[in-house]
Amino acid sequence: MAPVKNGRHIFKEIPTGFPEPGKTTVYDESETIDLEKAPLNGGFLVKTLVLSIDPYMRGRMRDPTIESYAPPYLIGEPLNNFGVGKVLRSENPAFKAGDHIYGMLPFQEYFIAQNPKEYRLLENKEGLPWSVYVGVCGMPGQTAYYAWKEWSDAKKGEVAFVTAASGPVGATVVQLAKGDGCKVIASAGSDEKVAFVNSLGADVTFNYKTVPTRKVLQKEGPINIYWDNVGGETLEAAIDAAETHSRFIECGMISQYNTQDQYPIKNLIYVVAKQLKIYGFIVFTLHAKYEEQFYKEMPRRVAAGEIKYQEDFTHGLDKVGEAILDVQTGKNKGKKVIIVAND
Amino acid sequence: MAPVKNGRHIFKEIPTGFPEPGKTTVYDESETIDLEKAPLNGGFLVKTLVLSIDPYMRGRMRDPTIESYAPPYLIGEPLNNFGVGKVLRSENPAFKAGDHIYGMLPFQEYFIAQNPKEYRLLENKEGLPWSVYVGVCGMPGQTAYYAWKEWSDAKKGEVAFVTAASGPVGATVVQLAKGDGCKVIASAGSDEKVAFVNSLGADVTFNYKTVPTRKVLQKEGPINIYWDNVGGETLEAAIDAAETHSRFIECGMISQYNTQDQYPIKNLIYVVAKQLKIYGFIVFTLHAKYEEQFYKEMPRRVAAGEIKYQEDFTHGLDKVGEAILDVQTGKNKGKKVIIVAND
Repeated sequence: MAPVKNGRHIFKEIPTGFPEPGKTTVYDESETIDLEKAPLNGGFLVKTLVLSIDPYMRGRMRDPTIESYAPPYLIGEPLNNFGVGKVLRSENPAFKAGDHIYGMLPFQEYFIAQNPKEYRLLENKEGLPWSVYVGVCGMPGQTAYYAWKEWSDAKKGEVAFVTAASGPVGATVVQLAKGDGCKVIASAGSDEKVAFVNSLGADVTFNYKTVPTRKVLQKEGPINIYWDNVGGETLEAAIDAAETHSRFIECGMISQYNTQDQYPIKNLIYVVAKQLKIYGFIVFTLHAKYEEQFYKEMPRRVAAGEIKYQEDFTHGLDKVGEAILDVQTGKNKGKKVIIVAND
Repeated sequence: MAPVKNGRHIFKEIPTGFPEPGKTTVYDESETIDLEKAPLNGGFLVKTLVLSIDPYMRGRMRDPTIESYAPPYLIGEPLNNFGVGKVLRSENPAFKAGDHIYGMLPFQEYFIAQNPKEYRLLENKEGLPWSVYVGVCGMPGQTAYYAWKEWSDAKKGEVAFVTAASGPVGATVVQLAKGDGCKVIASAGSDEKVAFVNSLGADVTFNYKTVPTRKVLQKEGPINIYWDNVGGETLEAAIDAAETHSRFIECGMISQYNTQDQYPIKNLIYVVAKQLKIYGFIVFTLHAKYEEQFYKEMPRRVAAGEIKYQEDFTHGLDKVGEAILDVQTGKNKGKKVIIVAND
């Protein structure tokens, strides 16, 4: 068989504000691959099926000399992120042709990998769509599940405030909080998103673009748990609305990612007076503790319809730039997934 | 015996900035008490020996409708705070004449109390001066000891940064951190205070009024543990200098107590990226867990000279206003104690 096109999506330039499709990242079709003859050298050939687009990717588009929790993207190299691929050929006993694997995949149609430890074999006994394994059953679901178990210390009747509640992390947190008997206040950035969050069982939902967060928290609070996906002014409002001994789970601060001008927070004095506990975390740190429990529980509960989710598909590696920007500006409706190829 | 003067120090007016001696609080000699005949009604008569002056007292000088962790001082009533008193007469079997008790004492020379559960009988087998029981062996020492045990998670070779390190809390933390094998960076507000902190074994000490905190942390950091007594700009510098997984023990924010204009903190985005854990606390919350362990260990170690301390005495209830202001402005040299009477 003749070599086939091996399309890639490349990191081209470090952005200062929002990433720009075609400028920050570009689609490239210059490479080809012979799927039958490409040498594996003891590795395995993978066909990329789905790729995840996540808010944290913005942090990887940085000067590579700046250290941070996730490695920087390198200029001229394909992006990479969580994805699901199908093994086409393998010289490694860990995987065989037809297996589906989950892990950090390059943004290209086909790739050859050597280290099976970097991927998880997905059994998928439940027959879920593969896209689910980068969403509610992948990193975003793990983010919600791990940190909620580790730090929420949720007690029945407590009030939890969840931001970015229509996203894959927030939506899962809303459902875990309801499961633990909390009253859930949840915010999202459009009326359509708010309707989805409502359908998850949140007690109080609002569009933070049309209703002031402070006003809602004043009426429906005080809060005991704050799940922070946004930071900035919302974090400040949550500190003001916090009850003594509140737990703040600091998952992300998307309001601060695309600006040089960080919001000034002026009420940290309450951290002492209210005895707040603030837990900054990255999901990877909790992986060893919760991974197996997560894969035992989550796909089963999702398949049973106990945990709901929403996905927003973009088709084709050439549209990655627009998908990244949508996630940074909140235009996506649910978990953003790039569909690269059918199974 | 004729009634004797029972001097009191009264809360007179809620301050907006620093408390003003004679305006915020006043000394009053209008009351008398008959030490032999005053009816006890089943309680006990106490002679006040020493009273503690602490930074947190500023927070109690507030509009009583504002809730906070410690009850507000009431206009026209004597101040109260931790102190040691001697029982002169008792109708309660819990205490007998000659006993020394520790607890929340009114700022007056003599008082009659009813509830023995509000006080701790001090055995003082070590024969320490009573003032020590409101300092390194009292609330400030407990603050350091409890929270260090609970949250520092100190590992040998880690770097701890301690602010207000010449005060009774900070000085104790410096010594606990050294005991756990940490490299200790410590700041204080005068060269004389710095010399004292040096004598405690801190590895790097500096006068924050003449040397920029950021510069020291840049050179001697990054840090793994931050003991915060000051908040504001110093807290911001500590966040910048923090290593991944650092622990921030938020004990106080004295730089923010006497101003309406709170310092704006702009780098909280690192709470997520560096996975910081921030523990706001009030000592009372940890009391049940650590109190007995503390009284078993601390007086013994202090008597043995293993834990050092420094005291700054003010003689007489009439000087309380100046003592309070000194503590808010950092003019005290070590633990500020009011000596009300000799034993």
